[in-house]
Amino acid sequence: MYYKHHVFFCTNLREDGRPCCQRFDARAMRDHAKARTKALGIAGPGGVRVNTAGCLDRCGEGPVLVVYPEGVWYSYVDQEDIDEIIDEHLVHGRPVERLKI
Amino acid sequence: MYYKHHVFFCTNLREDGRPCCQRFDARAMRDHAKARTKALGIAGPGGVRVNTAGCLDRCGEGPVLVVYPEGVWYSYVDQEDIDEIIDEHLVHGRPVERLKI
Repeated sequence: MYYKHHVFFCTNLREDGRPCCQRFDARAMRDHAKARTKALGIAGPGGVRVNTAGCLDRCGEGPVLVVYPEGVWYSYVDQEDIDEIIDEHLVHGRPVERLKI
Repeated sequence: MYYKHHVFFCTNLREDGRPCCQRFDARAMRDHAKARTKALGIAGPGGVRVNTAGCLDRCGEGPVLVVYPEGVWYSYVDQEDIDEIIDEHLVHGRPVERLKI
């Protein structure tokens, strides 16, 4: 596995007012995740990669992200949720049950 | 697994002339993959999802895509390569060895 954990944030914005991840500031959350994984020294090949993705098609459950290869999907509310996903799942390999969808 | 195969195309464009996937028309290849998986009736939950991704950080090997949860990375040249990945890997579960990176 080129990356141990590959994280994709849906950052899609639907302009018509229907639910979408970017309405919850998903891009800022992705930026925060990128910065935190770098600061923790876990970013890069063999470690964690955080990416933007287009619409992951789970709009009504958003904002969502998915961690591969595990295929664990999360819905988050704020930066604290992102920090918990990083610190528990990405650092310690313990998925965060309360945020799973 | 919400999607049986989740495909991410790097569609990043680097403006400074260094190698990047979009220089090889990655977005058009992604659009083709989306259209073909829909036409084949394999797109959607339980099946295949094709997504755009930001820079997957394998620029020198591009254009690249990755298929999860398998974590199989491919470099492709043209639409025929994409068709082979779809028809062999996504439909029949046989990764295309000659295109793997």
